Amino acid sequence: MSKPLSFQQVILRLQDFWAERGCLIWQPYSEKVGAGTYNPATVLRALGPEPWNVAYVEPSYRPDDGRFGDNPNRMQMHTQFQVILKPDPGDPQERYLESLYALGIKREEHDIRFVEDNWESPALGAWGLGWEVWLDGLEITQFTYFQQAGGYALDPVSVEITYGLERIVMFLQDLRAVWDIDWDGTRTYGDVLLQPEIEHCRYDFELADVERLTQMYDLFEAEAKSCIEAGLVIPAHDYILRCSHTFNVLDSRGAIGVTERATYFRRMRDLARQVAVAYAEQRQRMEYPWLEEEIQNRKSQIAKSQATALDSPAIFLLEIGTEELPASDLDDALSQLQQLVPAHLDEARLDYDSLRVLGTPRRLAVLVEGLAPRQRPVEELVKGPPTRVAFDSAGEPTKAAEGFARKFGVGVKDLEVREIDGGEYVVAVNRQEGLPAVDVLPALLPELIATLRFGKSMRWNASGVAFSRPVRWLVALLGDAVIPFQYAGLTCGRASRSSRPQDSATFEVARADEYLDLLAERKIVVDIDARRIIIAEQAAKLAASVGGTIPDDPKLLDEVTNLVEQPTALLGHFEEEYLKLPDAVLVAVMKKHQRYFPVVDGDGNLMPHFVVIRNGGEEHLDSVRHGNEAVIRARFADADFFYREDSKKTLEEFLPRLGTLTFQEQLGSMLDKTRRLEKLVPQLAETLGLSAKETQVAKRAAHLCKASLSTKMVVEMTSLQGVMGREYALKSGEDPNVAEAVFQHYLQYLAPSARYVPIKSRPGLIVGLANRLDSLAGLFAVGLAPTGSSDPYGLRRDALSVVQNLLAHEQPFSVRAGLEAAAALMPVDVFQESLAAAQEFVVERLRGVLREEGFAYDVVDAVLAARGDDPFRARRAVEQLAAWVARDDWSRILENYARCVRITRDFEERFTLNPARFEQPAEEKLYAAYQETRAQVTLQSSVDQFLTAFLPLVDIIDAYFARESGVLVMDEDADLRENRLAQLQHIAALTEGVVDLSRLEGF
Amino acid sequence: MSKPLSFQQVILRLQDFWAERGCLIWQPYSEKVGAGTYNPATVLRALGPEPWNVAYVEPSYRPDDGRFGDNPNRMQMHTQFQVILKPDPGDPQERYLESLYALGIKREEHDIRFVEDNWESPALGAWGLGWEVWLDGLEITQFTYFQQAGGYALDPVSVEITYGLERIVMFLQDLRAVWDIDWDGTRTYGDVLLQPEIEHCRYDFELADVERLTQMYDLFEAEAKSCIEAGLVIPAHDYILRCSHTFNVLDSRGAIGVTERATYFRRMRDLARQVAVAYAEQRQRMEYPWLEEEIQNRKSQIAKSQATALDSPAIFLLEIGTEELPASDLDDALSQLQQLVPAHLDEARLDYDSLRVLGTPRRLAVLVEGLAPRQRPVEELVKGPPTRVAFDSAGEPTKAAEGFARKFGVGVKDLEVREIDGGEYVVAVNRQEGLPAVDVLPALLPELIATLRFGKSMRWNASGVAFSRPVRWLVALLGDAVIPFQYAGLTCGRASRSSRPQDSATFEVARADEYLDLLAERKIVVDIDARRIIIAEQAAKLAASVGGTIPDDPKLLDEVTNLVEQPTALLGHFEEEYLKLPDAVLVAVMKKHQRYFPVVDGDGNLMPHFVVIRNGGEEHLDSVRHGNEAVIRARFADADFFYREDSKKTLEEFLPRLGTLTFQEQLGSMLDKTRRLEKLVPQLAETLGLSAKETQVAKRAAHLCKASLSTKMVVEMTSLQGVMGREYALKSGEDPNVAEAVFQHYLQYLAPSARYVPIKSRPGLIVGLANRLDSLAGLFAVGLAPTGSSDPYGLRRDALSVVQNLLAHEQPFSVRAGLEAAAALMPVDVFQESLAAAQEFVVERLRGVLREEGFAYDVVDAVLAARGDDPFRARRAVEQLAAWVARDDWSRILENYARCVRITRDFEERFTLNPARFEQPAEEKLYAAYQETRAQVTLQSSVDQFLTAFLPLVDIIDAYFARESGVLVMDEDADLRENRLAQLQHIAALTEGVVDLSRLEGF
Repeated sequence: MSKPLSFQQVILRLQDFWAERGCLIWQPYSEKVGAGTYNPATVLRALGPEPWNVAYVEPSYRPDDGRFGDNPNRMQMHTQFQVILKPDPGDPQERYLESLYALGIKREEHDIRFVEDNWESPALGAWGLGWEVWLDGLEITQFTYFQQAGGYALDPVSVEITYGLERIVMFLQDLRAVWDIDWDGTRTYGDVLLQPEIEHCRYDFELADVERLTQMYDLFEAEAKSCIEAGLVIPAHDYILRCSHTFNVLDSRGAIGVTERATYFRRMRDLARQVAVAYAEQRQRMEYPWLEEEIQNRKSQIAKSQATALDSPAIFLLEIGTEELPASDLDDALSQLQQLVPAHLDEARLDYDSLRVLGTPRRLAVLVEGLAPRQRPVEELVKGPPTRVAFDSAGEPTKAAEGFARKFGVGVKDLEVREIDGGEYVVAVNRQEGLPAVDVLPALLPELIATLRFGKSMRWNASGVAFSRPVRWLVALLGDAVIPFQYAGLTCGRASRSSRPQDSATFEVARADEYLDLLAERKIVVDIDARRIIIAEQAAKLAASVGGTIPDDPKLLDEVTNLVEQPTALLGHFEEEYLKLPDAVLVAVMKKHQRYFPVVDGDGNLMPHFVVIRNGGEEHLDSVRHGNEAVIRARFADADFFYREDSKKTLEEFLPRLGTLTFQEQLGSMLDKTRRLEKLVPQLAETLGLSAKETQVAKRAAHLCKASLSTKMVVEMTSLQGVMGREYALKSGEDPNVAEAVFQHYLQYLAPSARYVPIKSRPGLIVGLANRLDSLAGLFAVGLAPTGSSDPYGLRRDALSVVQNLLAHEQPFSVRAGLEAAAALMPVDVFQESLAAAQEFVVERLRGVLREEGFAYDVVDAVLAARGDDPFRARRAVEQLAAWVARDDWSRILENYARCVRITRDFEERFTLNPARFEQPAEEKLYAAYQETRAQVTLQSSVDQFLTAFLPLVDIIDAYFARESGVLVMDEDADLRENRLAQLQHIAALTEGVVDLSRLEGF
Repeated sequence: MSKPLSFQQVILRLQDFWAERGCLIWQPYSEKVGAGTYNPATVLRALGPEPWNVAYVEPSYRPDDGRFGDNPNRMQMHTQFQVILKPDPGDPQERYLESLYALGIKREEHDIRFVEDNWESPALGAWGLGWEVWLDGLEITQFTYFQQAGGYALDPVSVEITYGLERIVMFLQDLRAVWDIDWDGTRTYGDVLLQPEIEHCRYDFELADVERLTQMYDLFEAEAKSCIEAGLVIPAHDYILRCSHTFNVLDSRGAIGVTERATYFRRMRDLARQVAVAYAEQRQRMEYPWLEEEIQNRKSQIAKSQATALDSPAIFLLEIGTEELPASDLDDALSQLQQLVPAHLDEARLDYDSLRVLGTPRRLAVLVEGLAPRQRPVEELVKGPPTRVAFDSAGEPTKAAEGFARKFGVGVKDLEVREIDGGEYVVAVNRQEGLPAVDVLPALLPELIATLRFGKSMRWNASGVAFSRPVRWLVALLGDAVIPFQYAGLTCGRASRSSRPQDSATFEVARADEYLDLLAERKIVVDIDARRIIIAEQAAKLAASVGGTIPDDPKLLDEVTNLVEQPTALLGHFEEEYLKLPDAVLVAVMKKHQRYFPVVDGDGNLMPHFVVIRNGGEEHLDSVRHGNEAVIRARFADADFFYREDSKKTLEEFLPRLGTLTFQEQLGSMLDKTRRLEKLVPQLAETLGLSAKETQVAKRAAHLCKASLSTKMVVEMTSLQGVMGREYALKSGEDPNVAEAVFQHYLQYLAPSARYVPIKSRPGLIVGLANRLDSLAGLFAVGLAPTGSSDPYGLRRDALSVVQNLLAHEQPFSVRAGLEAAAALMPVDVFQESLAAAQEFVVERLRGVLREEGFAYDVVDAVLAARGDDPFRARRAVEQLAAWVARDDWSRILENYARCVRITRDFEERFTLNPARFEQPAEEKLYAAYQETRAQVTLQSSVDQFLTAFLPLVDIIDAYFARESGVLVMDEDADLRENRLAQLQHIAALTEGVVDLSRLEGF
């Protein structure tokens, strides 16, 4: 073994490697940037049509990642090596893998994976789709097809490869701590960078003056604007970078609230967009000097069909070879193919026996057995003259028949007689024989592929085709014949490729029926169900080998199944000391970050093991394990650092820091919000009838509920805010009920999948309600209601949580009253209009929930129009109304009520009812029945109670309107008429405050 | 010929080259820096004792150098490649030359020179000594021994090598414009950097908001301070860099006045010092982790002398081999050696026949002919008892003689008798034979070398020795014997080195007498006078070949002579179009920047030719010429750009811009100053009796005198402010007298060497006076008088100019009155104390001038005590007084005047003189004579007038005091006494306001 490369040798090798492959070697930027992307050599050069290939080092500053040098893997500064290939050269992944080879990382000895990871920078108005590249579980590179920058759709798309140099070198040198990296054969990374790291952390987290940095930000922004106005792209961009870094430092100082963040992002994005526009226009004015001769459109015209038509059914294969598909896109694609293939074949009149849809991250495959050699034939009938006209009495064709036959190109003899619409006509039968399948498929297949849709799709080359990830090869065989077509710049053939660990080597598929065997030879498990079973079995076996089991987690299993095509499980271990960390943290790290299966013992306690599913075979498993263990160790070390740091204080001691965390400029800090919650919670507790003890718990929970936002663990992993709030509360010696309430107040909705969370805390419900009512009342009041697709403050989620928690707890509650109570505590004026809008906003979420639960929209509308303010009672009403609507006699009930409404609804005036003026017995009878019903109905009545009470009226109303009753409502006598209308108005009004039946279908 | 290296290939080669030689490869910094030096990898790592070797690229931003991309060579951003070698490896120049070789630049094909260029950064409290490296006249590298940083003396010293990458690549690719550089084989430098260049220029010069940037500066500074307080070195340094860049932009915007600049520099320097202290302390606290085992002190002890003593006189050679000495240091060294060698030999009692002191930039040589083989012997006499005591009557030695002889270790027989001070004594003669020269020289030579002093000297290695530049070899031979000694870490021997173009190859000097022949063989002209003649002849010959001559310029000739050891002249040419530029500009560029000899025609007009003296032979002269022509073309293009830009406006149109150029915060802008001068000038004109026309000219000149400070040419080359003011005034159609006055008001003193400047403008004098009186009155008033060695506002120069211009114009003028007039126009209160201090400050300059002119200090003091306020009249008085002092009878004159003063000076009371009370004729006579003298003397009397009038009094005073006169001044009778004292007081007072004779020696 030769000595591993030093840090600087890795850089020099990468520079040489990419320079030899046509990249311009560029330098790190003269401003502090968060990533190489922000260097103008990426973010600006990616714009516009000109080609651009560049490579450079970029020391990247992310203040938030600072750990005071205490963490062996996380630093506020890390070093990227950035490569941009524009346009896509067609094989960027392979080039990248070659560059790893140049560093001594051989793909055959490791598990190198492309794991979905998309990239978005709100500050730059930029996004891209791609992967993180995993090297034995270690993320070493970000690989992105850059789709948009500065709000511009990129055409052509740039391939952006961002190497994490420290990670790679640590791997090469087999180190646990970045500080031990050999830089140049003499000095270590820590020698030169540890002290600056510690100092930057101290500055970013503790020293930076918030007031001064805020002023700097404003000055930078003002200069950026003035540069943009003057069309100065680079100076403007420099100032945006300064804004961005200053923002990041402010953020590390904890000076940026959730709402402020959105504002800052918007400001930066606006600037970035304008700079992008300015740059794009500049290049256009310069007439794109780098634009080379248009790349020759080498669409070699292939002959219509080279394949000979078959005469018997055959197996058909379509394989779409792709770069690694995201797990969910793979699922989407397979289920769409399951629908689309039959539909397309059917429409094309191609019969078949059976169909299999198969797939791995790198291939989507369709196998059709017994595909008919030709389309089913069709007959077209053209109606001619009636028989009596077409034939003379002798039965000979007339001139009319001859003319008709001539016109439609058939012989007179071929005319047939058919009965059409009860008459007899001659018809010309236009029988069309089906085309051979080999001629139909070349058009069908590209259309089929183009029909696939993904949550997010991307473009990558000049074909302009959009797909989940780039399509790199196509195989389509009917029997042994290639079905020739072109798609996404590719020509279909019989060449497929093996898996990544096999170097994606090309192999030929001679006949469609060999396909599965060929894959099996290459250990590729193309059937997703088979793969899932293999993985589950392997994992269970490994867990059992240490006396453990894998907790049931279908979501994780499904995801992992979609990440490999050649699955091999291995068992990894980590230091037992980390087991002292909260389970939620460990599990979150293992599952979310690494897609490892946790292993638990008989009591459900975590064990210091995990199962990794690698993509590849049994070779070099030890080195793959070694790598994966190093990764999880690093991640746990990180979490451990937060946990230890946070544990130095009680949860309550984190409270004051909330004063520097802005909730929203006008609504104050998170501490101000906490103070409001402390006042609102007792009011809600009384409304909801909590016990004194529960109220006490809720008040304390309100006091502490936001404190975890100041802890390092939560700053790092926001999703753990509830879990860590509870954990730290317990460690601080708080009442366990308080801790539980702190946890539960965050819960979005109490779904059964929240397996660590038994739903039981009424105090948690109250604090959660208070929290969300405060946000809704406050943010609507200051004009920050969600608009269109924009909801920066997550108010939809808040409103939805209000609804769902009340439903889950079966808790009657007036949202309006709650909002009013919250409004009374606001530091700003809350006007009725904004309160009403907030209430309506909650009702809309309720409407959505109820519809999703499957209730008919009219039933939901009918109830919500009357009582949307109380979600729980509304749902009960909906359930009841739905049951009524399902009754056989419902249309009669509704119809009779509707008669009363319809005849009266055009009169605005409420007429006076005078029973003395009744003329007919039907009127008397109706009045008596009405009074009986009326007595049973109140505003509190349930829909059931109301309709049960109303039911006796149905027959009576029916009789009232019957001709026999002698009652003509619209009598000529005005008095009489108005008295009758008055009576019907009373009946119509019975539903008021209960349900608006007029919203129902059929009304 | 292979294809020249691309820009990025040059970088990759340099990285590889230095990495292979033990350098850590570092990255450009994440802030905008003016040079690689500012990267912490240099400015901080250079501090302290730890070794450090590093190399990195550094895009360097210097807003002031921006030319809107219009200039083919000057940009606000250029790319440095920085190397730090700490400690000095002993052969850094050779390593550097090897790195050029790695780039394909072969020293044998070019003229590669190390030309003195020292480096100083006030902002960093840093300086170093070294060179610019010239490649065929093109500056391609800065090579510095870094002596101080952050106010710290560096130990060890760092070698700092800064490659100018664009220059080098342009040379390699033989380009005229930086924009044409091939970057990567596809794109040019202009492709990627021209547009950003233009934009940065527009921002820096036109758009940057002065108010906002000033605020940024203050915020950055405040953060830097807070970081320093917290001991955060790197964050503090980052902010200092931001301060520095912000300052540079403000400066480009013309927003920084002369006095403001000094303040900013002080602020930045203070911060830089504090950061340096913090870093140094930090490393010390860390106990210098990189400090390797103390480099073994390999002072191999050499035996006292290996050389055998000679027995006849021999030739002695000392050669001190150095890295390139600055021209003036070479002169200094040679003249010191001329003094020191005889003095040292004499003191060492080593006789010799003759001495030659020789030298080139790389060697100082001393050749001594006929050096005695041994020291002259010495005799020491020890005086013993008198002869009469030492010998008895029989002439035999007594016990006393025996005791004396024993005590001093001689035999009694050896005692000698000598006459001493008129008596006879026995003496012991201690005769010391001289030591062999070979034993004396080893101690003498290092002492001799150590005695050499230079204006600025430097250290470079652990020996701690200071010299002009590093000493790299030593040769000392007496005949054929090496005189062994050590100095500066070197051991002396017989190995000398050839010239740079000959690769500094080592050669052995067998015998001292071969030395000159060996050098001659190597074409090295070691005799400075011979070299001067060769150069002058070669240059004249080449000039003649195009029909021109070289204007006489001994200073330039001397300098050039000191820059080469192997001189070969070549004739270069430039485009005639540049001749349209003012001669002063062209000459300044050729001489100051390039040390080229201009060529003029018969009328003294510049011709489009120049003469370069290369260091080296006739080989590859064409390529050397080609390079030098490219350089001058580039420099002229730069000047041409300024000239064209400036010429777009009239001079007057540059005035408003002065409003943004601060003179001093309290004293306003340069425009404010201009307004004051416009008021002050007419007052002075009246005082000095200018004609109405002259006054008109002076007023207009005052209006325009500072305008050129806003022009690009002057911003670039401040020394041209007067020349360009005149030039642009003429081009703007101003009266030529006005233009001339604008020019002349700047002149420091009207020395004859200012050959383009006939002294004739009285308006120029007035404006110059006004300008300087304004500065003196104003800056003293706001407390900015020079202190100690600090004179940031150049007030010494201003005061000196006031003095010298008045002297040169023979113009009587009251400085006090002038200062008062200037003070009256100030926007601040000017107190009497500060005016008096300013006046005294001018008097002190006058004192210095007069003393330098050779007048005796007492004569000067005597005059200045009485009439220092008027420099011209003071000098006349000094001249006259000096003539009087030189008279034979002067002591009598002075003595008699002095008698009058001495006897009266202890009386504070002024007694009343009553001639009626005279008692003796001598009194009467004295009184009559006094009255006659008195009548001739006024405050306006010259010293001559006064002394002539006083002369008749001398005899009379003498007689008065003679015993014979019967006058006893200190008579017992008080009345009589006081009357006599009164009379003498009147005589003593005659000098008042004319001259203070009491200051004279002998008084």
